[in-house]
Amino acid sequence: MELVERLIAGDERALARAISTAENDGSGAAEVLRRIFPKTGRATVVGITGPPGAGKSSLVDRLITRYRSAGNKVAVVAVDPSSAFSGGAFLGDRIRMQQHATDRGVFIRSMATRGQLGGLSRASGDAVDLFDAAGYDPVILETVGVGQDEIDVARSADVVAVVLVPGMGDDIQAIKAGILEIANLFVVNKADRPGADRVVADLESMLSLAPPGDGPRPEILCTVAPRDEGIDEVVAGIARYLESAGTARRERLRRERSETRFLALLRERLTGRVLELALAGDRFDATVRAIAERRIDPYSAVDDLVRRVEVR
Amino acid sequence: MELVERLIAGDERALARAISTAENDGSGAAEVLRRIFPKTGRATVVGITGPPGAGKSSLVDRLITRYRSAGNKVAVVAVDPSSAFSGGAFLGDRIRMQQHATDRGVFIRSMATRGQLGGLSRASGDAVDLFDAAGYDPVILETVGVGQDEIDVARSADVVAVVLVPGMGDDIQAIKAGILEIANLFVVNKADRPGADRVVADLESMLSLAPPGDGPRPEILCTVAPRDEGIDEVVAGIARYLESAGTARRERLRRERSETRFLALLRERLTGRVLELALAGDRFDATVRAIAERRIDPYSAVDDLVRRVEVR
Repeated sequence: MELVERLIAGDERALARAISTAENDGSGAAEVLRRIFPKTGRATVVGITGPPGAGKSSLVDRLITRYRSAGNKVAVVAVDPSSAFSGGAFLGDRIRMQQHATDRGVFIRSMATRGQLGGLSRASGDAVDLFDAAGYDPVILETVGVGQDEIDVARSADVVAVVLVPGMGDDIQAIKAGILEIANLFVVNKADRPGADRVVADLESMLSLAPPGDGPRPEILCTVAPRDEGIDEVVAGIARYLESAGTARRERLRRERSETRFLALLRERLTGRVLELALAGDRFDATVRAIAERRIDPYSAVDDLVRRVEVR
Repeated sequence: MELVERLIAGDERALARAISTAENDGSGAAEVLRRIFPKTGRATVVGITGPPGAGKSSLVDRLITRYRSAGNKVAVVAVDPSSAFSGGAFLGDRIRMQQHATDRGVFIRSMATRGQLGGLSRASGDAVDLFDAAGYDPVILETVGVGQDEIDVARSADVVAVVLVPGMGDDIQAIKAGILEIANLFVVNKADRPGADRVVADLESMLSLAPPGDGPRPEILCTVAPRDEGIDEVVAGIARYLESAGTARRERLRRERSETRFLALLRERLTGRVLELALAGDRFDATVRAIAERRIDPYSAVDDLVRRVEVR
């Protein structure tokens, strides 16, 4: 049987291979993604994001157990940009897989970028589609919510839970402000630690000051993931949000997600194509050298090139 | 006098205006950047990066004081992607400016992206050039080192100090692995807290296992920024690194930086140009809608467009 058919039938090896291809080189995976695309758009994508150290992985592991009990096949796409240089994502994969290793209804996949701008959102979008086509629902998208790329990734989910934790530094204020707009649900994890009440109070005052958005007001829930406390409430909160947000919002989100994917893919492919057409061989290096030696400024170099671009 | 001349003469208002233009819309600033470009490449760019809560801002404030005492004009470009949605960077600006408000030799500028992929590295690169042309040296580039965009920004500095702090979560392991490759110097801040020795020991064992890079082995320094402890050593460590790394490495870095800027700018401009040429008016929306409704897959939509691109 062919890769695409095996994948849609739920074959894990076919799935793993397709995701690796998507991660390493988008163009190799294009044919597969093209063919599975009509089978996508069915899974609910649950975004879990927050700063490093907030205990996102433990929370996700508990959520997996709940969704499994309800009979769902669950996939996790863990976006881990910090491993870009080290390949550490694969180590993380192995460690986390152990917990659900005997359960064939769970598939956890960590993704690292290969240093390409925008490559992260493209590759993680591909992985979500592949899981979706293979019948996983929900697909949990776990990101470290600090950088712009990661915020873009989180935005693409149907519902975004932002995980915070008591006792982090001052920068948490800035993070909270930044992710307020993407949060549909707040989870204060490690809520047995001192300072949890203050985080909840801070969030409440922040929400009371925020202009009314287009969706329901985000709930604030407390959890202690290692002790399994509050997890059922998070599952219920996610379901409540999805129900109250309604289909109109979901349709709009789906359009936004399509736009993001189209643009990310276009940026990647377009630059490659133009460099190939206009700056093949030594010419790319020569241009970069001219900029480094201040013989030409980057704006002029880019404008010279962009001005010559045409679309048949 | 014209904006460019005023900027090069060190006029702060002209500088502030040029940076705002670069941040809000690259194309408006292109003419200014083109003209100041021959005046750039003189300042030393000092990257300070690390996870949220590591106390980077306090450390940077102390470094400013040292460089000022040595008679330098100091600029800070604080890259704050978390404020992308809230405009919070400007509030942060005002708070931090107060400390050095009476000192005209210090210019602190926070930058937030406007949601555009790659826009962050382009805009912060522009700001560094503008400060450089206006005679600021060093230019301190402060980033939250977690996402791919931010790692790319940090890479563009002549020397990168990675700031860590005792007692953060497990994710710190992943972060450390990820930023190992860009660190020229480690600063363990808040070193009066329990666990500082362990962070130092972890870093030392990590460095002893790492393959030898092309530069000198990173030093590990301890600071307590609010008490002004260890700051002189950081200044000396930065100087030592720059001296021992030598000019060959600096030339290579300058080439890498030119390449990054060229590509970031090319991606931004190219996509704009092709969308304008091929998908003007309602056609962009129609394409996105077709993808959202699964009538066309994003790969085919992009390939159809990219295949038609030519360079005269």
